[in-house]
Amino acid sequence: MAFVRHEKEVPPADLSAEHDLKGVELRPLITEEEGAKNFSMRLFRLEPGGYTPFHVHGWEHEVFVIGGDGQVVGEKGTLPLEVGAAVYVPPEERHRFQAGEKGLVFLCCIPNT
Amino acid sequence: MAFVRHEKEVPPADLSAEHDLKGVELRPLITEEEGAKNFSMRLFRLEPGGYTPFHVHGWEHEVFVIGGDGQVVGEKGTLPLEVGAAVYVPPEERHRFQAGEKGLVFLCCIPNT
Repeated sequence: MAFVRHEKEVPPADLSAEHDLKGVELRPLITEEEGAKNFSMRLFRLEPGGYTPFHVHGWEHEVFVIGGDGQVVGEKGTLPLEVGAAVYVPPEERHRFQAGEKGLVFLCCIPNT
Repeated sequence: MAFVRHEKEVPPADLSAEHDLKGVELRPLITEEEGAKNFSMRLFRLEPGGYTPFHVHGWEHEVFVIGGDGQVVGEKGTLPLEVGAAVYVPPEERHRFQAGEKGLVFLCCIPNT
């Protein structure tokens, strides 16, 4: 059955074992645990100057910026992000999301591999 | 390679052949055409009082509300929507999204079946 959950009801994930990141909050909104078999939806909040790991993996990201500003760093350069920006990061491309002065809030969907 | 496209750069889809809807704008932000093989990300804007078709299909929705307010109507009832709400609609459940007085803006991801 359909469900609605406010992002504030979803506890942030424990990122204490992660490296090479700063000021990152990740809330797993809809995941395989909720019965979503194909892909998951997560909400990221980066504090001003925060960043996610510069890493690479075998799955794509589909991102939409809903607050703040920043950049996505890929293998071919850095692209600016503002509210309303959709970002596709293909599998196997190293990347990082980083916040500008206002912080950065974005949704990030990934396949459940 | 990673790309960024602002939602305002993406032309709305032609919904003229659709029925049972009112005041719906759909922008296909990231789709199979852009190389996203697993799932697509679309942005919906419903004008105040607008609604999507009350329909059923074999794929799930993962939704996040980024503006306005409204409701999702499922087979077991109606659930309120506000900014920050994540919605999962499972495959084969009839559903409709409808806007309140402020309109409704949401992201909706679907698998590429």
